[in-house]
Amino acid sequence: MENLLVGVRDGSISIDEAVLKLRKAPFEDIGYAKLDTHRELRQGVPEIIYGAGKSAEQIIGIIDKMKETGQETILITRIDEAKAADISKKHDIEYSAQGKIAVCGTVSVPDGIGTILIATGGTSDIPVAEEAAVTARALGNEVKCIYDVGVAGIHRLLSHMDDIMSSSVIIAIAGMEGALASVIGGMADCPVIAVPTSVGYGASYEGISALLSMMNSCASGVSVVNIDNGFGAGYMASMINHMNRHRVV
Amino acid sequence: MENLLVGVRDGSISIDEAVLKLRKAPFEDIGYAKLDTHRELRQGVPEIIYGAGKSAEQIIGIIDKMKETGQETILITRIDEAKAADISKKHDIEYSAQGKIAVCGTVSVPDGIGTILIATGGTSDIPVAEEAAVTARALGNEVKCIYDVGVAGIHRLLSHMDDIMSSSVIIAIAGMEGALASVIGGMADCPVIAVPTSVGYGASYEGISALLSMMNSCASGVSVVNIDNGFGAGYMASMINHMNRHRVV
Amino acid sequence: MENLLVGVRDGSISIDEAVLKLRKAPFEDIGYAKLDTHRELRQGVPEIIYGAGKSAEQIIGIIDKMKETGQETILITRIDEAKAADISKKHDIEYSAQGKIAVCGTVSVPDGIGTILIATGGTSDIPVAEEAAVTARALGNEVKCIYDVGVAGIHRLLSHMDDIMSSSVIIAIAGMEGALASVIGGMADCPVIAVPTSVGYGASYEGISALLSMMNSCASGVSVVNIDNGFGAGYMASMINHMNRHRVV
Amino acid sequence: MENLLVGVRDGSISIDEAVLKLRKAPFEDIGYAKLDTHRELRQGVPEIIYGAGKSAEQIIGIIDKMKETGQETILITRIDEAKAADISKKHDIEYSAQGKIAVCGTVSVPDGIGTILIATGGTSDIPVAEEAAVTARALGNEVKCIYDVGVAGIHRLLSHMDDIMSSSVIIAIAGMEGALASVIGGMADCPVIAVPTSVGYGASYEGISALLSMMNSCASGVSVVNIDNGFGAGYMASMINHMNRHRVV
Amino acid sequence: MENLLVGVRDGSISIDEAVLKLRKAPFEDIGYAKLDTHRELRQGVPEIIYGAGKSAEQIIGIIDKMKETGQETILITRIDEAKAADISKKHDIEYSAQGKIAVCGTVSVPDGIGTILIATGGTSDIPVAEEAAVTARALGNEVKCIYDVGVAGIHRLLSHMDDIMSSSVIIAIAGMEGALASVIGGMADCPVIAVPTSVGYGASYEGISALLSMMNSCASGVSVVNIDNGFGAGYMASMINHMNRHRVV
Amino acid sequence: MENLLVGVRDGSISIDEAVLKLRKAPFEDIGYAKLDTHRELRQGVPEIIYGAGKSAEQIIGIIDKMKETGQETILITRIDEAKAADISKKHDIEYSAQGKIAVCGTVSVPDGIGTILIATGGTSDIPVAEEAAVTARALGNEVKCIYDVGVAGIHRLLSHMDDIMSSSVIIAIAGMEGALASVIGGMADCPVIAVPTSVGYGASYEGISALLSMMNSCASGVSVVNIDNGFGAGYMASMINHMNRHRVV
Amino acid sequence: MENLLVGVRDGSISIDEAVLKLRKAPFEDIGYAKLDTHRELRQGVPEIIYGAGKSAEQIIGIIDKMKETGQETILITRIDEAKAADISKKHDIEYSAQGKIAVCGTVSVPDGIGTILIATGGTSDIPVAEEAAVTARALGNEVKCIYDVGVAGIHRLLSHMDDIMSSSVIIAIAGMEGALASVIGGMADCPVIAVPTSVGYGASYEGISALLSMMNSCASGVSVVNIDNGFGAGYMASMINHMNRHRVV
Amino acid sequence: MENLLVGVRDGSISIDEAVLKLRKAPFEDIGYAKLDTHRELRQGVPEIIYGAGKSAEQIIGIIDKMKETGQETILITRIDEAKAADISKKHDIEYSAQGKIAVCGTVSVPDGIGTILIATGGTSDIPVAEEAAVTARALGNEVKCIYDVGVAGIHRLLSHMDDIMSSSVIIAIAGMEGALASVIGGMADCPVIAVPTSVGYGASYEGISALLSMMNSCASGVSVVNIDNGFGAGYMASMINHMNRHRVV
Repeated sequence: MENLLVGVRDGSISIDEAVLKLRKAPFEDIGYAKLDTHRELRQGVPEIIYGAGKSAEQIIGIIDKMKETGQETILITRIDEAKAADISKKHDIEYSAQGKIAVCGTVSVPDGIGTILIATGGTSDIPVAEEAAVTARALGNEVKCIYDVGVAGIHRLLSHMDDIMSSSVIIAIAGMEGALASVIGGMADCPVIAVPTSVGYGASYEGISALLSMMNSCASGVSVVNIDNGFGAGYMASMINHMNRHRVV
Repeated sequence: MENLLVGVRDGSISIDEAVLKLRKAPFEDIGYAKLDTHRELRQGVPEIIYGAGKSAEQIIGIIDKMKETGQETILITRIDEAKAADISKKHDIEYSAQGKIAVCGTVSVPDGIGTILIATGGTSDIPVAEEAAVTARALGNEVKCIYDVGVAGIHRLLSHMDDIMSSSVIIAIAGMEGALASVIGGMADCPVIAVPTSVGYGASYEGISALLSMMNSCASGVSVVNIDNGFGAGYMASMINHMNRHRVV
Repeated sequence: MENLLVGVRDGSISIDEAVLKLRKAPFEDIGYAKLDTHRELRQGVPEIIYGAGKSAEQIIGIIDKMKETGQETILITRIDEAKAADISKKHDIEYSAQGKIAVCGTVSVPDGIGTILIATGGTSDIPVAEEAAVTARALGNEVKCIYDVGVAGIHRLLSHMDDIMSSSVIIAIAGMEGALASVIGGMADCPVIAVPTSVGYGASYEGISALLSMMNSCASGVSVVNIDNGFGAGYMASMINHMNRHRVV
Repeated sequence: MENLLVGVRDGSISIDEAVLKLRKAPFEDIGYAKLDTHRELRQGVPEIIYGAGKSAEQIIGIIDKMKETGQETILITRIDEAKAADISKKHDIEYSAQGKIAVCGTVSVPDGIGTILIATGGTSDIPVAEEAAVTARALGNEVKCIYDVGVAGIHRLLSHMDDIMSSSVIIAIAGMEGALASVIGGMADCPVIAVPTSVGYGASYEGISALLSMMNSCASGVSVVNIDNGFGAGYMASMINHMNRHRVV
Repeated sequence: MENLLVGVRDGSISIDEAVLKLRKAPFEDIGYAKLDTHRELRQGVPEIIYGAGKSAEQIIGIIDKMKETGQETILITRIDEAKAADISKKHDIEYSAQGKIAVCGTVSVPDGIGTILIATGGTSDIPVAEEAAVTARALGNEVKCIYDVGVAGIHRLLSHMDDIMSSSVIIAIAGMEGALASVIGGMADCPVIAVPTSVGYGASYEGISALLSMMNSCASGVSVVNIDNGFGAGYMASMINHMNRHRVV
Repeated sequence: MENLLVGVRDGSISIDEAVLKLRKAPFEDIGYAKLDTHRELRQGVPEIIYGAGKSAEQIIGIIDKMKETGQETILITRIDEAKAADISKKHDIEYSAQGKIAVCGTVSVPDGIGTILIATGGTSDIPVAEEAAVTARALGNEVKCIYDVGVAGIHRLLSHMDDIMSSSVIIAIAGMEGALASVIGGMADCPVIAVPTSVGYGASYEGISALLSMMNSCASGVSVVNIDNGFGAGYMASMINHMNRHRVV
Repeated sequence: MENLLVGVRDGSISIDEAVLKLRKAPFEDIGYAKLDTHRELRQGVPEIIYGAGKSAEQIIGIIDKMKETGQETILITRIDEAKAADISKKHDIEYSAQGKIAVCGTVSVPDGIGTILIATGGTSDIPVAEEAAVTARALGNEVKCIYDVGVAGIHRLLSHMDDIMSSSVIIAIAGMEGALASVIGGMADCPVIAVPTSVGYGASYEGISALLSMMNSCASGVSVVNIDNGFGAGYMASMINHMNRHRVV
Repeated sequence: MENLLVGVRDGSISIDEAVLKLRKAPFEDIGYAKLDTHRELRQGVPEIIYGAGKSAEQIIGIIDKMKETGQETILITRIDEAKAADISKKHDIEYSAQGKIAVCGTVSVPDGIGTILIATGGTSDIPVAEEAAVTARALGNEVKCIYDVGVAGIHRLLSHMDDIMSSSVIIAIAGMEGALASVIGGMADCPVIAVPTSVGYGASYEGISALLSMMNSCASGVSVVNIDNGFGAGYMASMINHMNRHRVV
């Protein structure tokens, strides 16, 4: 903004132009979706396309536009195999069928503080874990996964104590009773991001049981993202793992 | 019923009398509450008075009536100190202020299979644990309590591994995330009765979070009673611990 | 653990080995699921495979691994007929289409304290009852089933008074109003495990009505497992019916 | 309306008057509450004052106005003892402290088809039963009450089989699991009005458990009124018991 | 029971026989469902088969059995057209595709006190209304239906004032805001049975909005049955409309 | 009414006729739905057909009838493409596949006070926005749409400040967190109609999260319609934008 | 903004100053609450103080500050009588004890399009109505109130048809079943703002029943504000009633 | 563990002692609460006492014990002024009456990566913010607070853009619609911890509206802690702000 005002003062930019620039600059409009081209600069991360409810054509259009503006890494979440196949005809993507997530472009070299550990309570929570893992890797993190370490067999979890104690951020993913986050939160000395999953039956009510359980965690250093939101957890964990990038102001 | 029919056949009992007996036998009426004098015979346990919403006078009246019918042990649940004081003027009772529960009469000598272990997640769950402990002791059980062993500090629970492995029934009491039941259920090789408590704030919603969490326990051998229902847990645990009394039929 | 420490003391086990053993011993890892080979010893029961969300191939792989470790009885829950057919090509299983549950291997001879009675409120609750019955039988219990004895026709239930009075554990299964557990709990002198079912329409809300109803049972000696959790009820009932196995410590 | 139109035709009523009459006739306005003076004619019953949230002065004012219009019986619901005492200084009322309900004026001689039976699950449900009983008696019904016959001790209820089989309408009042309505509905051959109560603790959630349970009753011939709505049940039962008054049209 | 006791006294019936008879009489066991052959006698109405979750073969089997025991009218609810077609190959039935309900056997001549009026808020509520209408007619009632008279166009309802004022019972069926019951309840001088329907979208939450609305009706003389329970409403209305059948005891 | 009464007085209209006329006038009965032919006169707007649950034939029948009574504009909501195709064989309609809404007949020339602005939080909310836009245009309004301006990228919304400040009514449509309405409500000086959408996953619970969020908006001048109710929002906005039509009475 | 840029260009405003001005202008900081002194200009209405949770001293401080900036009318909502008394010692206010709302300063002369009609279902809804009425009057509207016209006595509402047909905006306030909004919405040809109230007992659940009912209104032209939010309704109604003030842009 | 095993091997430690040591080390038992004296070492942070439900005496006892074990900073949460006064007689504490939180002992010098910004939607959210601020400062963080910047007046928030862009972690605290977290999450390039508060009325349902809203935030980099859990947010934020302390393993 300062540059612009300098331009106005020295006459190199007319007032009308200045007004227009201030309004138009931060994004481009492609009809069905606004594109935030300043995002990487502003937030230091790749652009994300939320794939659910968008056609392959729309997604390709958004990728085209992003590439034009110089975006190097693009994450596409919540797309099924058919859609991924259609997109891959036009753009090179790496697709995870389990996580229903694709990466388009170069993946950053890991440059975070440490390793992000992703733990799941059961084998049915793995798709959410995959979404988190692909996200975190694409954002430049070392990732390690341990699956099926739910609290009903606490010795399974305890045998991974080393991983738990040596990670820089942990993502704890669990459905049903959702206690994994509390137990890990009590053991670890790093931030824990909890992800409730909609896995289960009966009174699990599509994740509400796990969500409430995690919100009520007695362990300190635990915070929660939306049900099944593997992407959100991976993104948050990456942010924390990149606190070394923090600009002094 | 057979005796009665024999009486009818041999004429020692008239038909009208028989009809009347069949109807009147199983209980006595004292106006505001029906008294089930056959209960001890039928279920092999002391009679219980649910004290909430009953005046001290009403409770004394029920105790009087019960004693007349030969009841030796009487449990009175959910009574505050004032009410307990009033009752104790008329009847000898042992009162637990924390558990808000009193025992009137002789307490059975422990004759169960083993020890009932009562574990709580936090110190605020202790009142519910006390209600369970007094109940189980009055019903003839050895009881051991370990408090404040919630899953957010799993090493506290693990240090009691011996108790957990050697009990015959375990009562797991927890509010907030309610994961204690799952963790214990996965470690123990005996039945676990889970009691959600209304302890907590925010999204614990007066026990619903812990209740759902316990219903969704991934551990086998766990079943659940109502929120804050220490009495119910103690009673159920005693039943299980007295399976040695089971009559062969 | 003691044996191990003795080995360390007498030099027969090196310290590194000891550390490794303590960590690795209790389970084996087959990639997508951790296998708990110490479970039978620890909890005295067969291993369970929760079939929902696992492919026939994955289940076969788990069975293979379990058999290698000497597991004699394996229960596979929540599998449909197609999956069961695929598994039966590789392993001998006994499949219940109604209960969607299979048993692989030898079924234990009944050695419990008495008979487990399974009662349902309606005919639509039978699948849940079958899951409970197959589970309890596989775990070594005599099982008796009485179906369609809901409380809206109380004479149907009353005609089974003999069964109710002579069982050692009762499983009460009901949807809709879920009152069966209370009524049976008031008649029986043994523990009652209540299973709410998702049967019903309108305000039954997929079992929540029956669940709340059972949680609020006024009868003592009733505890509740998750909605439609026939397996969990059968397992808990078997544990109680095998209290004669309790090891004195 | 026909009389009015005849009056218009024969000129005895002017058009303006006719318009006015059509609008003003059915009620009188006393500032804070509209009084429906045509109600008894239209619905054949006394007028009701819902006392909650109205001051004693306001209630006295409404009674005054009602008496002026010739109302013979007035029911005042949901008033505490203090308010009742204030009202009784000005008007003769019969007050039930348990039911928190008062009757002002003459009570109709019972002229219904048969007896209304009021049954409660526990002793804590009695206040709601009293509200129902006073209402039904004031509306001209024979009423019989049986208390504390909850389904957890089904023999208590069964001993009243005669009453259940010989009533013309039954009001079943219960909190907690709320199963009383189903059991009675299955036994009786008359309409059953179910009233859930907010009695209970834990997962009874102020009556919602009993409400859902009653909505899901498997018995036919059962319908439900609002939680704790003893008045509504008494009113509905009276309507049914007075079907002999039905005007042929 | 008296006859039986007389038989016992005079020796014509042995005691064992007597016990057996008392237990066996009220039902016959046909495997998948127990039939109450005493029901018509006891409750004066046809037998009902709840068709949901039963195969055509099972239903035919139940009908066969019922006919053998002399049942003249049989209602089969919640069956789709395919099932109805299969049943009609074996038994003469009258099927309503809209109400998904069939009548097998003779329909009683209307012998109730008056007419049952069935009113719906919208056209989408008609299937529930049809279920109620077929039920009420089969049970011997004159039935009149008025559809699409929801309160958002109150003049439509008002134009049926004559019907509302002259019916003996009214069934008010509505989804969405469910206000129809209150408005009719305030106009009519007869009992009103309210049926919430699961019709609607958004915050109607499958009938819960209409259910709560009807439970909270400010009108007296309104009671509620389960969501979409047209049969239950028709049955209850018929019971009320046949209060002239009430046996003096 | 006055004219009618005059007719009654002067004898040109018989009393029976008068009664009939008063009752019959406001609607005509075509069997499956009653039509309010007076509606356009009374409310100054086209007639609406709620298409969900109606067959193409039924809709065509209603359109036929409406056209006979002189209706010029007819809106048909919630119809899929197949149904629209069937209707278009008989009547000229303009169909929006995205909004699942059709207009039949002439569309009014915009004659409102200003422009209605429709804003959505994401691209998935567009179908609801289209339903609102088509409705508002058919009712005679200038409409402008801005999509994908959700609050998580507030600069996108801020760049439309001019539109927001110059509209006469704004419709804010959003799922997930639903904050759009609050932010716009705080910026605009015109009424804002908020529409929660069922877009989202996890804890969005089919719109309940957005609904509660909008109900709790801290901004003044915001009111809410049902989840996904684009039509309702368009209708309400049009009403407000036509306050210039208000008849002085 | 243009002026500012001109200033920057001609050098009369430094760039730093420009940045500062753009940021500082719209509010002044008085520590515990930021005041938007531009608000009246921007939105054309008085400033509102939400009194709940603020001390009398804090409120007086805010009023002082507002008056300094030239604010002529100030509304203070949700204050009890004690707080109002304290404030009135320092500032002239007009306080409504029923609505718990005060006006400080001059009240605008009514200059809206027509009359705002406020209708309540019962007498207990009057406090919310008063809050709405005081708000609307303070904002320059003619207001008319009709109380106790709930739908359970529809003739009471119908007798006010003239008011309903001649108002420019209607506020419909009701608890319990909340149907008032739908009925009025179907009769009126003006926008209706619905306010659910927390009045009621049992299954009214503090307004949720009325809220859902109003959200599901079948009438067009109805939108909803928060439970008990009389102020919000009055504000919204005033906005609509002042559409004549709309600036052409 | 290795040292211990070495001791076992060389005989300096007996096996029984070894077992005991392994079990006893991590905590000391002081009766009413177990203390984790290893915690500071393990997690690098002060010990926390959750004050709710504990007496001043109990808290003093815990502090005594903690000080003995060398704990330098102790946080006591959820204590009212009376309790704080009692504690301060024995120990030097710094008490925040607004946040109901006290610090005992030395407060660490800020040594985090940057500044933690705490923003609230309204003035009523300040107590939760204070709890978070005291917590974060005690844990060694620079903290800045901006209050009353809710989204309904977005310009207030925008004027703090500098603070938002330059913080290392942000805590966003809001009740009612809870949108603050989304808006800040979209602007900031650092992790955002969202805290829903129970502030509000009507459909805010004690924080559930804000909780759901925050869970559904469309912004990336936002995670949520329990309702009103200012302490939890401060703790989590501190953990993230101290990622510079992360030990390389």
